[in-house]
Amino acid sequence: MDIKELIRSVPDFPKEGINFKDITTLLKDPAGFKAALNELYELAKDKGVTKVIGIESRGFVFGGALAEKLKAGFIPIRKPGKLPAPTVSETYVLEYGEDKIEIHKDAIEPGDKILLHDDLLATGGTMKAACNLVEKFDAEVIQISFLIELSFLKGREKFTGYEIHSLIEYDGE
Amino acid sequence: MDIKELIRSVPDFPKEGINFKDITTLLKDPAGFKAALNELYELAKDKGVTKVIGIESRGFVFGGALAEKLKAGFIPIRKPGKLPAPTVSETYVLEYGEDKIEIHKDAIEPGDKILLHDDLLATGGTMKAACNLVEKFDAEVIQISFLIELSFLKGREKFTGYEIHSLIEYDGE
Repeated sequence: MDIKELIRSVPDFPKEGINFKDITTLLKDPAGFKAALNELYELAKDKGVTKVIGIESRGFVFGGALAEKLKAGFIPIRKPGKLPAPTVSETYVLEYGEDKIEIHKDAIEPGDKILLHDDLLATGGTMKAACNLVEKFDAEVIQISFLIELSFLKGREKFTGYEIHSLIEYDGE
Repeated sequence: MDIKELIRSVPDFPKEGINFKDITTLLKDPAGFKAALNELYELAKDKGVTKVIGIESRGFVFGGALAEKLKAGFIPIRKPGKLPAPTVSETYVLEYGEDKIEIHKDAIEPGDKILLHDDLLATGGTMKAACNLVEKFDAEVIQISFLIELSFLKGREKFTGYEIHSLIEYDGE
């Protein structure tokens, strides 16, 4: 099954000139959703993952399902102000301005083996901040996985030394 | 396993006087997460569900996992401006002001049997709007499920005629 065929390109979203990769057409297809999840599972099943971290909010869909299949716990990384208990945060630079993500202070336990998941690797800024967050704890990033990689943006170069995977690659816009 | 014990109450979040029910302590516990998901699955497994709709963003965690277990597709309902393709929207009234949710116009197919899921039933405004959205299509809401129900807010009264379930109930704040 070619899951790439189930991804839709939406021109000029969220702004002119961006050809947005829409995963909702994959998610609504039961066979496609299952196939993508199985591919992510196969990549991680022998790694001893104890926690899957999903990044708000599209990363929650596969992240939750993946955690359950791996018999791991699930941890959300969220935008500021969304998590109710004390958090640790990481600020990162965007093209214009900056952004911040948070994780609960008590989410990660010493020795946890972490799988970080998000739907899309573009420039990699958010995921790099997520790695930095995890490494404030006594825990290890075992694997980083994405559904989609926009390889022409070279985000992968930010992750030297990490095991990183994507299921679907786009070489150009 | 008592999954209620894994829910944490956080006082005064998001504002003073609210005793927020935090599900992240359940999610990070592999056995607790699996047990809760299995309970949701057991409620729905014989209903012929074709699509699970999760409501942004905590509804995506169990919603995605539940869709996969039910061999159904997954559809997100999101805040305005987040979905890239043409949408149908529903506005609903809050205590002060109003809010809006959206679904992709092509998400639901005629005859779909829909399971609507969110993490928490409070006054039920968002979920009622989600029901209204689904019913703009030629599809049926088969079941509505929540992880947690704040029964003292009587949100359930908005859903007469629907099959509605929650796994954990709080009678008072």
